[in-house]
Amino acid sequence: MTSPATLAALREVSTATITTVLLKKGIRNAYMRGPKPLVAGAGRLAGPAFTMRFIPAREDLAVPEAWASPRSTRAAIEDMSAGCIAVADARGLTEAAIFGDILVARMGKRGVTALVTDGTMRDAEGVIATGVPVWCTGAAAPSSVAGHIFTGWQEPIGCGGVAVFPGDIIVADGDGAVVVPIALADEIAKLGTEQERFENWALAEVHKGLPLPGLYPPNEATKARYEAEKKK
Amino acid sequence: MTSPATLAALREVSTATITTVLLKKGIRNAYMRGPKPLVAGAGRLAGPAFTMRFIPAREDLAVPEAWASPRSTRAAIEDMSAGCIAVADARGLTEAAIFGDILVARMGKRGVTALVTDGTMRDAEGVIATGVPVWCTGAAAPSSVAGHIFTGWQEPIGCGGVAVFPGDIIVADGDGAVVVPIALADEIAKLGTEQERFENWALAEVHKGLPLPGLYPPNEATKARYEAEKKK
Amino acid sequence: MTSPATLAALREVSTATITTVLLKKGIRNAYMRGPKPLVAGAGRLAGPAFTMRFIPAREDLAVPEAWASPRSTRAAIEDMSAGCIAVADARGLTEAAIFGDILVARMGKRGVTALVTDGTMRDAEGVIATGVPVWCTGAAAPSSVAGHIFTGWQEPIGCGGVAVFPGDIIVADGDGAVVVPIALADEIAKLGTEQERFENWALAEVHKGLPLPGLYPPNEATKARYEAEKKK
Amino acid sequence: MTSPATLAALREVSTATITTVLLKKGIRNAYMRGPKPLVAGAGRLAGPAFTMRFIPAREDLAVPEAWASPRSTRAAIEDMSAGCIAVADARGLTEAAIFGDILVARMGKRGVTALVTDGTMRDAEGVIATGVPVWCTGAAAPSSVAGHIFTGWQEPIGCGGVAVFPGDIIVADGDGAVVVPIALADEIAKLGTEQERFENWALAEVHKGLPLPGLYPPNEATKARYEAEKKK
Amino acid sequence: MTSPATLAALREVSTATITTVLLKKGIRNAYMRGPKPLVAGAGRLAGPAFTMRFIPAREDLAVPEAWASPRSTRAAIEDMSAGCIAVADARGLTEAAIFGDILVARMGKRGVTALVTDGTMRDAEGVIATGVPVWCTGAAAPSSVAGHIFTGWQEPIGCGGVAVFPGDIIVADGDGAVVVPIALADEIAKLGTEQERFENWALAEVHKGLPLPGLYPPNEATKARYEAEKKK
Amino acid sequence: MTSPATLAALREVSTATITTVLLKKGIRNAYMRGPKPLVAGAGRLAGPAFTMRFIPAREDLAVPEAWASPRSTRAAIEDMSAGCIAVADARGLTEAAIFGDILVARMGKRGVTALVTDGTMRDAEGVIATGVPVWCTGAAAPSSVAGHIFTGWQEPIGCGGVAVFPGDIIVADGDGAVVVPIALADEIAKLGTEQERFENWALAEVHKGLPLPGLYPPNEATKARYEAEKKK
Repeated sequence: MTSPATLAALREVSTATITTVLLKKGIRNAYMRGPKPLVAGAGRLAGPAFTMRFIPAREDLAVPEAWASPRSTRAAIEDMSAGCIAVADARGLTEAAIFGDILVARMGKRGVTALVTDGTMRDAEGVIATGVPVWCTGAAAPSSVAGHIFTGWQEPIGCGGVAVFPGDIIVADGDGAVVVPIALADEIAKLGTEQERFENWALAEVHKGLPLPGLYPPNEATKARYEAEKKK
Repeated sequence: MTSPATLAALREVSTATITTVLLKKGIRNAYMRGPKPLVAGAGRLAGPAFTMRFIPAREDLAVPEAWASPRSTRAAIEDMSAGCIAVADARGLTEAAIFGDILVARMGKRGVTALVTDGTMRDAEGVIATGVPVWCTGAAAPSSVAGHIFTGWQEPIGCGGVAVFPGDIIVADGDGAVVVPIALADEIAKLGTEQERFENWALAEVHKGLPLPGLYPPNEATKARYEAEKKK
Repeated sequence: MTSPATLAALREVSTATITTVLLKKGIRNAYMRGPKPLVAGAGRLAGPAFTMRFIPAREDLAVPEAWASPRSTRAAIEDMSAGCIAVADARGLTEAAIFGDILVARMGKRGVTALVTDGTMRDAEGVIATGVPVWCTGAAAPSSVAGHIFTGWQEPIGCGGVAVFPGDIIVADGDGAVVVPIALADEIAKLGTEQERFENWALAEVHKGLPLPGLYPPNEATKARYEAEKKK
Repeated sequence: MTSPATLAALREVSTATITTVLLKKGIRNAYMRGPKPLVAGAGRLAGPAFTMRFIPAREDLAVPEAWASPRSTRAAIEDMSAGCIAVADARGLTEAAIFGDILVARMGKRGVTALVTDGTMRDAEGVIATGVPVWCTGAAAPSSVAGHIFTGWQEPIGCGGVAVFPGDIIVADGDGAVVVPIALADEIAKLGTEQERFENWALAEVHKGLPLPGLYPPNEATKARYEAEKKK
Repeated sequence: MTSPATLAALREVSTATITTVLLKKGIRNAYMRGPKPLVAGAGRLAGPAFTMRFIPAREDLAVPEAWASPRSTRAAIEDMSAGCIAVADARGLTEAAIFGDILVARMGKRGVTALVTDGTMRDAEGVIATGVPVWCTGAAAPSSVAGHIFTGWQEPIGCGGVAVFPGDIIVADGDGAVVVPIALADEIAKLGTEQERFENWALAEVHKGLPLPGLYPPNEATKARYEAEKKK
Repeated sequence: MTSPATLAALREVSTATITTVLLKKGIRNAYMRGPKPLVAGAGRLAGPAFTMRFIPAREDLAVPEAWASPRSTRAAIEDMSAGCIAVADARGLTEAAIFGDILVARMGKRGVTALVTDGTMRDAEGVIATGVPVWCTGAAAPSSVAGHIFTGWQEPIGCGGVAVFPGDIIVADGDGAVVVPIALADEIAKLGTEQERFENWALAEVHKGLPLPGLYPPNEATKARYEAEKKK
């Protein structure tokens, strides 16, 4: 399980930087295509993934009665732990929402950190009012039964073209959401923290008027200068 | 014709709830894919559809001179009644706008409640300044002749993948726009009002800390409790 | 080279009007599909195009080390002149960003007027903080090496489905970005200024309550009235 | 009305050549995107357009009972004249077919030259067996009521991104289908015939080993040589 | 479990007719968008679904070594029963194939009736040579690890926008593939057989020269005539 | 430059196998999305890439007169060497063709091995008649000036989402086209030849009835058996 220190560290590293350090470890497909913050200025959040899986609706099964089934989204939500990030595989289908304000409000009550999906929300203004930060592909009025069947939770899923396993660390900010494989979380937190520090320093140098060649990426002289200033 | 009472009632029912009650009546394809509020916070509006139809442009016909034709968009606008919602079938083409600030300003003068389209607006800031609420797929600079030929009004059309007939009731809010077949308007208004009331009650219960299973959808005990409280 | 007077005039003409006058000169494909202001309210900007070209990434070439190459984006930025509008051909690929805050900050230091691309930005909040106005297709966390190889600058490119040659004039506002072929810039500035003046007059007439037929487009009587009032 | 001689001439001109001569007359948007021959080797056909229009299905209207309505596709077919090319606007929707073997067989009985649509066919093998040549976007099993409502015939329509008016001439061959505005049909037939003749001559020259510069497009010397040989 | 008689009956009913009778039972979403016969003239096949599920690849997991895992596609194939139709959920991803000739050859050895997927095949010519009929979205050279991770078998899946549960009956022919919910299989077989018989009769009537109104759909007189002739 | 032996070896390795061995060398993005054989049964071809670049058309530049320019496609063709594979970057635009029969016939006269593009062909039947094998995305009637401007040749390009540099080796067969970076060509030829040999052996084992686990991928026992049989 990922330590609170690693989670805290990842919350300070931008998703942009995380994709860069993941790429250095050979992971190119970690950034979800589609999910964006439902409201601007949501900041950055991190937490272990709680996965949910939907498949396309079929009229004999996708009916409001299904919501009362023991395999319903309601049961899944009751199984969520405080601090998790709920990640829902909606297969990118945008024409029917997966959740509305009532379900998201309950997630908030259970201490869910955020909801990430490649699908859409309904009652989007009500969802925002719950205070649970959501990364999704927008709003749509139809309920989940108009497009989706819920099939289960804590399974491996795809979301936004990326594989997500239960417990993988999700980091989400203004640029979108990225998955950090759990086995790499500590290392990415460490590398990301250092990379972030260097990028902040380089940005300050640019603001001072320095040109980019030799600075970013740094040549040997720049590296030495950075290391020297870092020690101060 | 739809009564003012029905229209007033529909204005209080979210598009999310309307799609749910339409689904219970067997209507699954009523939510338009594409149209979104041009500015946030437009609230909810309802009105009978005034339809307009565009087909793709052909250079021998899509010329500025066409704007002076008796079958032009100008003539259509003069035929609009106060309170209607203008619905334009742009076939989802986004590369050329269908209207700019001048035409939308005139719609405002004629008392049009809103404009809904699966196409785009030009002079989008000017359109916003007219005060006429618009649901569309975004902004594009080119004028309609760059992509569209106007072919007529008050015909059956498609908009955002949904059939719209003149006089059908359009309801639009933050989640988008939905069509209510005119023959069902009274029933949907009634069912929607009740559904909306229950959902508000259920949301309040969630805020009190109740879990979803048994609450939403309600089991018999919850139904009884809701009915009892409703009578108070 | 385009005169400061022409540039100043184009800055007062909306992209909507520019596409209309370009169409009258036979140019239909000048509006870029995709690029939109990264922040609302950026106003309108104009400047000569400084072009950059990307092709899809290949793992043996798209590596962070490439950033230090003499053909890197860094070298291109150092070649930009104050007042130019940087236009980057990202082939519409949205899954990997082309620039982040550090590079855009350096563009700002070099006096670049704006950045226009059919690709995405990373560290989007940081990019906004640089103060350089950007027209793009959104945000994505992955760095350019995850999706792009930079191949050179000041070549003919495509951007948003439109051809852009170095030195062509770019005008960008709330509706998006349009290219004015350099050979037509003076004429478009002149025609656009006049068209804009007429449209403002027509809009005012609509606000006074005049219907559109005969007004917009103007019939002979309207033209005479407009000319008479213009002389006042 | 288009003369039999013009129709006969257009049948000898490839759609590729027709788009070239239309472009010289200022018509750029005449080639339908989507429709391809359902079977290879269908040759080339030409005829006046008989238009049909579909909009998206709505469950209260798109029911098998609609097929018996006086505004049904059945009534439209009985209104078709021998020699026409039926052109159906399916709005590019491919998930539900517009016709199957029974309706197409009846078109064949009525002497319809061909069927062109931006939609799909069901019972595709049965449709092929009717012997009526079809240009479409493929096969799909669901019937029209699963996705479409038929709204009428002999109206202006869009098909494959192109405007088609009743009576416009349709030419279709292995490359797809193109619309020739009726007012231009005679001129396009004449220009196309000549262009086709030159292209055949140029192709023969290439087979003899001549390089392209100076040959295609022809310089003055080539033009003179061609004119001289043509007279033989 | 579905009886051999029902399977035999469904093999005689076209997918077009099956979608029609499913629609009459309220099932609109049963036709898979995407899968088409890899080779023409494959006829019609029916069998119970054996489901397989893929999610997007991640570089730390999508490696050739995964093929030797006990949860690999190899293990799934050994679990297939003779007569089944393997249905693979590739999430519509076409850039990497899910299977090549070696795996499909093994399916053939195990008596698999057909393979249906919304993904692609590699070594497509080799796959055809195995003699196992395949419905897919085309060919692509990259192996599954370039785009997919296999996650398990005999789970509920989506394929071509349709829900498929293990044991549902799949029918595939020239128009594509359709799923018949197992609970409805007997009824659909019966209704489909009768519908098919009527359609064949109606087609013959059309070939005799009868017009469609009153024939298809049949009015009372036609129904009586059909019933009378059916008894002969 | 690539040796004839390497080219001959690559011609015997399927594109499927080449992508597998490229993946082992860290190259994941080498398979072009889009280009498919214009006629079935074209076999497999290999050759060094001769690159051509197109950008979107602009009406002031995309005119038939451009074909006579010294930077025209005609001049590029005269610069092609026998044995090369012409690769044209059409940016995936399918609405206007890049070449027709006359230009492709000239390529054939110059000894071009094949033409690969992410665009379309016009006069497709004429193109097939030239005998030059073509991998493309289909047929379209409009000429290149309707959608493209040719900008030059032997530059780095993108084609089907893949980077291609002049001289890179292209291999194309029934599954599509793949680029082998020139620096890796010898190694890929060697690894591919061996991989192909093993796959053929494994396929034969499957035909004998062996199950896949342990065979493909091979465990140690299978490896030993394969090596032993290979030596025979």
